[in-house]
Amino acid sequence: MTTLNEIGAAAQQASAALSQLPTKTKNQVLHQMGVKLQAAQADIIAANQLDLAQATTNGVRQVMLDRLKLTPNRIDAMAQGLFQVAGLKDPVGDVVRGWQTELGLQIVQRRVPLGVIAMIYEARPNVTVDAAALCFKSGNAVILRGGKEALQTNRVLAALLRQVLTEVGITPDAIQLITDTSHETAHALMQLTDYVDVLIPRGSGAFIKTVVATATVPVIETGAGNCHVYVDADSDLEMAIQVIVNAKTQRPAVCNAMEKLVIHQAVAPAYLPKIAQALKEKQVELRGDLEAQNILPDIESASEEDWSTEYNDAILAIKVVPSLSAAIQHINRYNTQHSEAIITNNYQHAQTFTNQINAAVVYVNASTRFTDGFEFGFGAEIGISTQKLHARGPMGLNELTTTKYVVQGNGQVRPS
Amino acid sequence: MTTLNEIGAAAQQASAALSQLPTKTKNQVLHQMGVKLQAAQADIIAANQLDLAQATTNGVRQVMLDRLKLTPNRIDAMAQGLFQVAGLKDPVGDVVRGWQTELGLQIVQRRVPLGVIAMIYEARPNVTVDAAALCFKSGNAVILRGGKEALQTNRVLAALLRQVLTEVGITPDAIQLITDTSHETAHALMQLTDYVDVLIPRGSGAFIKTVVATATVPVIETGAGNCHVYVDADSDLEMAIQVIVNAKTQRPAVCNAMEKLVIHQAVAPAYLPKIAQALKEKQVELRGDLEAQNILPDIESASEEDWSTEYNDAILAIKVVPSLSAAIQHINRYNTQHSEAIITNNYQHAQTFTNQINAAVVYVNASTRFTDGFEFGFGAEIGISTQKLHARGPMGLNELTTTKYVVQGNGQVRPS
Repeated sequence: MTTLNEIGAAAQQASAALSQLPTKTKNQVLHQMGVKLQAAQADIIAANQLDLAQATTNGVRQVMLDRLKLTPNRIDAMAQGLFQVAGLKDPVGDVVRGWQTELGLQIVQRRVPLGVIAMIYEARPNVTVDAAALCFKSGNAVILRGGKEALQTNRVLAALLRQVLTEVGITPDAIQLITDTSHETAHALMQLTDYVDVLIPRGSGAFIKTVVATATVPVIETGAGNCHVYVDADSDLEMAIQVIVNAKTQRPAVCNAMEKLVIHQAVAPAYLPKIAQALKEKQVELRGDLEAQNILPDIESASEEDWSTEYNDAILAIKVVPSLSAAIQHINRYNTQHSEAIITNNYQHAQTFTNQINAAVVYVNASTRFTDGFEFGFGAEIGISTQKLHARGPMGLNELTTTKYVVQGNGQVRPS
Repeated sequence: MTTLNEIGAAAQQASAALSQLPTKTKNQVLHQMGVKLQAAQADIIAANQLDLAQATTNGVRQVMLDRLKLTPNRIDAMAQGLFQVAGLKDPVGDVVRGWQTELGLQIVQRRVPLGVIAMIYEARPNVTVDAAALCFKSGNAVILRGGKEALQTNRVLAALLRQVLTEVGITPDAIQLITDTSHETAHALMQLTDYVDVLIPRGSGAFIKTVVATATVPVIETGAGNCHVYVDADSDLEMAIQVIVNAKTQRPAVCNAMEKLVIHQAVAPAYLPKIAQALKEKQVELRGDLEAQNILPDIESASEEDWSTEYNDAILAIKVVPSLSAAIQHINRYNTQHSEAIITNNYQHAQTFTNQINAAVVYVNASTRFTDGFEFGFGAEIGISTQKLHARGPMGLNELTTTKYVVQGNGQVRPS
């Protein structure tokens, strides 16, 4: 069996060659990978059936089974994803900035691949293909460690991608899948500092917290989203309802969904009944503080724990505040620095909110659901960073690169 | 006594206000800090004398005493440093990029402070003032933990800077010094994930390695420099000598000094005696592989350990290689990804070297000694990152910021 150290060393070795691949070659390979997946539909579904049967036997929840399940449509969507990544601009080689020094040195800061990226994720098999595609396009080797529920599916998917690499003469070590799904091996991967340049975990908030606490390799924290919408005293009720319904109900289980409504006390009595009505039509359970309960007597009370909880479900907690600054204070105290929105007609309040809220993305009069690599126009997304180092917010191909300074001279030495 | 958690919480609290300070205010404060240090010269020197006496009693090495010692000139240099930082462009608020989406959302990616920066460093008291100035200018709160040898000096310096903050009505918690210099407290600081956004260690390579292995807060690895100069077959001997003498001897103890000479076998017999002659005049001890020893019979042999050692001293090891690719392979195997140079007249070789070498800065025909925030024109330097995430190479004020996306809409919701 291949050890983790061997996997790491092979990935590092592969990354040197990958970093030098022309964009055209990478795009052709990605295209061939898409075609290969389409052609192998039957094999992929057969493997997926094994995973589904095993998961059902193990009593895995229905929601997890849905994530795990592949259909011809979903396989085609993965192939389309590969074609799309082929069409994206390659960030490698981009010059971020450049200048000439007093002594005539010509300095350019150029984008280069990070090197070896490790991904640890849960049941969705499409992450295997997405992550491999984005890492490959940005010139990085990838080590994939998916959830044990998807092992047979991931095996087939990785084998197909690697087969294309071999066919075109690129080392298949550029894309490696860890088939030992034990916690011990995941733990060891988080400590593989000799080989892993960055680890990107994808999954639940609790899972990502564990990774951050355990890892000694650099980690990009993604995903946890306790997102707020604040409805200001001077605001449009119709717009507030529209944004809230979208942010809360369009897809409640995702990280950019709204979890909390913060509302100014001046408009709470007039607005809350109508907002509550619109949300009840969408089967959203409401909870609230005392003031919210006074206005909406039939809702449950929100506990202290509610304010910091990401429900990922059709639940919304409501906080009534006496001022914009109280709203900002509440949000900065309980948020996960993901996405926060204000609904306001007041210029000054919009400025204050965007300046003072501590989050990756701050919205004025728009839904938090836009925090997404595709909606931002990046054409792809490897995750949404909720930390401050390296990348913050939706991460596309640029965020999978680092930079290198190239300095050209003609014999310059440093004066004493 | 103030606990570390209290220090962290106070820093986080302070950082919110700091992030909103106008540039003009920050510049005035920095200027007043410089004036304050100049006026307090006698107090600073008195405290420094206590540190020096204690260090001498403790048998601290002369080189360390030199770093610790403050003179009127050095205090004035610290003040001048503060005036210079006041003159630098404030990165906070800079728009990195911006665009409009199909739905009319206006997105800008804006620079904002990181939040709370922790610095752990060794004996140099000037780091206390430099780090405080750069963090303050970039809107960050800083937690300083200097070496125990400089404790009395650091106490006075931090007190003076904090006094200025208090005088102008800014919370002094923006700049805090940890006066408990135990290893336990340093260790706890490295794990203060609730409050510290980034930890920047400054010191020896071994020290930084320990920090990286211990810390659970995000760390920016700085400084270790096993830098190579490769002399190509097609190269100018005079330029090679000039660059090598500068890179090796101008300041051998610093991280951007040359540690290894890699030379093509075609020119080694003709070049090495002359290069050796020039280096011997500067009292550099030479070591070499077998081929180098054949050409320079009186030098010591370089062991396997030599290739990965950063001497930080007047020692140079020489490796003779049969090709450019062998040179690249050797450098990528043993380097610390800091600064590497090629001396060549060959266009293709310059391209191959800059493309394939894995380092923060790659030079063609120039000294590695230029890897420095001041030489790069940043006007300041908080350290030189040798890692790939967030910042790579010299770090100035920009690298002490993160970004925030601000999205302005007029009621947009995400289509299903």
